[in-house]
Amino acid sequence: MHTILILGGGKSSTFLIDYLADSCTSKNRNLILADLDVQMASLKLKNRPGTKAVSLNSEDSEQRRKLIEKADVVISMLPAFMHPTVAKDCLELGKHFFSASYESEEMRKMKSEIESKGLFFLNECGLDPGIDHMSAMRIIDRAKAENEEILSFKSFCGGLLAPQSENNPWKYKFTWNPRNVVLAGQGTSRYIEHGDLKFVPYHQLFRRLETVHFDGLGDFDGYPNRDSLSYRQVYGLEKIPTMLRGTLRRAGYCKAWDIFVQLGMTDDSFRMEMPEGSTLREFLNAFLPYDPTLSVEEKLSGIIPDLDFPSFEKLQWLGFFSTRKLPITTGSPAAILQAILEKDWALEVDDKDMIVMQHLFEIKGKEGIRKTTSSLVSFGEDSTYTAMAKTVGLPLAIAVDLFLEGKIKLKGLHLPVVPQLYNPILDELEKYGISFSEKEETRN
Amino acid sequence: MHTILILGGGKSSTFLIDYLADSCTSKNRNLILADLDVQMASLKLKNRPGTKAVSLNSEDSEQRRKLIEKADVVISMLPAFMHPTVAKDCLELGKHFFSASYESEEMRKMKSEIESKGLFFLNECGLDPGIDHMSAMRIIDRAKAENEEILSFKSFCGGLLAPQSENNPWKYKFTWNPRNVVLAGQGTSRYIEHGDLKFVPYHQLFRRLETVHFDGLGDFDGYPNRDSLSYRQVYGLEKIPTMLRGTLRRAGYCKAWDIFVQLGMTDDSFRMEMPEGSTLREFLNAFLPYDPTLSVEEKLSGIIPDLDFPSFEKLQWLGFFSTRKLPITTGSPAAILQAILEKDWALEVDDKDMIVMQHLFEIKGKEGIRKTTSSLVSFGEDSTYTAMAKTVGLPLAIAVDLFLEGKIKLKGLHLPVVPQLYNPILDELEKYGISFSEKEETRN
Repeated sequence: MHTILILGGGKSSTFLIDYLADSCTSKNRNLILADLDVQMASLKLKNRPGTKAVSLNSEDSEQRRKLIEKADVVISMLPAFMHPTVAKDCLELGKHFFSASYESEEMRKMKSEIESKGLFFLNECGLDPGIDHMSAMRIIDRAKAENEEILSFKSFCGGLLAPQSENNPWKYKFTWNPRNVVLAGQGTSRYIEHGDLKFVPYHQLFRRLETVHFDGLGDFDGYPNRDSLSYRQVYGLEKIPTMLRGTLRRAGYCKAWDIFVQLGMTDDSFRMEMPEGSTLREFLNAFLPYDPTLSVEEKLSGIIPDLDFPSFEKLQWLGFFSTRKLPITTGSPAAILQAILEKDWALEVDDKDMIVMQHLFEIKGKEGIRKTTSSLVSFGEDSTYTAMAKTVGLPLAIAVDLFLEGKIKLKGLHLPVVPQLYNPILDELEKYGISFSEKEETRN
Repeated sequence: MHTILILGGGKSSTFLIDYLADSCTSKNRNLILADLDVQMASLKLKNRPGTKAVSLNSEDSEQRRKLIEKADVVISMLPAFMHPTVAKDCLELGKHFFSASYESEEMRKMKSEIESKGLFFLNECGLDPGIDHMSAMRIIDRAKAENEEILSFKSFCGGLLAPQSENNPWKYKFTWNPRNVVLAGQGTSRYIEHGDLKFVPYHQLFRRLETVHFDGLGDFDGYPNRDSLSYRQVYGLEKIPTMLRGTLRRAGYCKAWDIFVQLGMTDDSFRMEMPEGSTLREFLNAFLPYDPTLSVEEKLSGIIPDLDFPSFEKLQWLGFFSTRKLPITTGSPAAILQAILEKDWALEVDDKDMIVMQHLFEIKGKEGIRKTTSSLVSFGEDSTYTAMAKTVGLPLAIAVDLFLEGKIKLKGLHLPVVPQLYNPILDELEKYGISFSEKEETRN
């Protein structure tokens, strides 16, 4: 009898919990769900046999290790900074470890020890990273098997609103961690195009856009996401001339968001203290030059020479030109901006979210250069059963299930980039409506 | 008999060494100059009686502490990160401490212990910070004594080239630490104007310019420097409506430098690996979008819509549009840029540098609002006896001399913002030709 421990029962865990809890009886398993909010955890388990909710402050190492000791496999849905700590516990206590987050440098340092102890540690098995790797590797491995050359691989993903819920000018609401959305893209993004290395500083990022089209949904903005170069090795495409991973927003979002970036309003490195009772207009003015002869609107146009009406309207809708009061007056600019957005970009109960992902390949085969476009669209059911929770949680749940069934024979530290992992996971996801549609076009 | 220890005998120490070494006999003092390069240190001491050069790796704490133990006062001319370490040694060994660098948070933590041990620690007693504080405080204290209200204080400083040495399109060469010049302004600059707090992110900094004029020298660009807000307290101007500290460059420099900033070429946060043999043109292209139909020049114009000929010419002069090879191909973008500039912005032997500083005050007195402009211009003699070394080193040397003469009665942690310090130091500086000229203009 196996025991599964899920650490963290927040928004992203809904489908993960359901998938694993539903089969506890039939598969003769126990499931422990540990969260700071034990009541919420208990509600999510719905009294299913074999399941139990426990209260856990995950930073309390004694309490955490006691729980881990009881488990066979541990799934960490905690904030990313906690993963290495949990992984270290698992390593010491001889437990298998699963997460949907990026494999960190600290995790890599444990690699040989994980192997020597015969454990299985799987990271990046959610949506992005996760489904992106698996679906891409299936195409890449197929091409390699045919001795074809992959000339270009661009991959985009976005967590957005279903069209019927796009009822604000941004066509955006928070479907995951608001802080991550506000800070998205900070640092320098890197990719390669036709053999040229490309480096994009944060303040150019939301201008370095590609238009990405989905049939039936229309156009999206895609901007380069972090370090695409490092994925050449992960995907076994060391010599590929073009490789770019990007993030999707609805067309027009990036141009407006770039205004916040240009102003310095997404800066998280210092603490501002605006006078009590300050307005959004005054907050905006703090990032504009002093000029008593010009209005805030005129000064903004001076800083953003290509300010257009669709972008202006997005700021106006948030109240930046009005006397609306700031929800908080101290904190980093990013924290104040986040507090503003959390009011206006909150998902309403019956809002539906949407996940869009698209891989664009150029592959040189016997018949010429083939363009393969592989697209995933997944809709949420409501503001709890979101497409985000589904696409992040199901791959992880499936991986754990397969592992406990003995269908994964791997040991050591892994990403889901090998057929033994991606084939059964993608096949099972298809039963839940998570599947890619492929289009091909060949030039001779 | 007192012993003075100078840690670091580099470029900025020339005048400091001469001032203190010249009077060792007449004032019955010893001077130890410690540097990694003991031969250079020895040359700078010129065999003056009472002086001695010793070899020191300043990060070797045993060796460093042995030397400090022999001294009565210690002057740290080491890189800024070493000051807290040296100050801690001085605190433990009961020695007085002097530096021309910013008072750090770590230094502030030692405040009460410095006092209780009856020691004197003086920071920010160079040029900027240093002469700026002293000359400003003399004007501020004078106004306060007359019960006048200071409405506005803007202060600018620059280490530049004397006009006869401005023989490149940038009108700039390195007269101090090149790395600091390349990274200058990173982070968010802060100031207050007419009661409005202003925050300027790095990528807007070189566009937030004021023109500053010096009689006989012409116009300069002034851009906001770091956190001007914190100086309201230092200067006792907590309620001042306008306060800005800025850095000066020759007119036109900032617009061209901003191109590097916009491209991301001053980023020091990650390591690039350009192919061996890459050219400056290819380095520039790495920060531009891919477009096979456009030249590097055309793509640059796309990113920098207001690119004008004076700016284009500055980049061209450095070889950015040519097949000139990169001096190094790996390192952060900032490190590669620095390596390029170090070749072309090196001071030639007979080049003369220039220090310019200007305080602009608006003071409400009995007769109305008075504009006081106080300006300092100081020229170097050659590439060794620079105006930079003179204005950084002399205030510090004078402070040490006054202290050993018993003319400074203060104990504890200090900046040179009190009359007991700034009056005698400014008076002595005047004998060396370092003096401000004042202009006044009154509106009724």
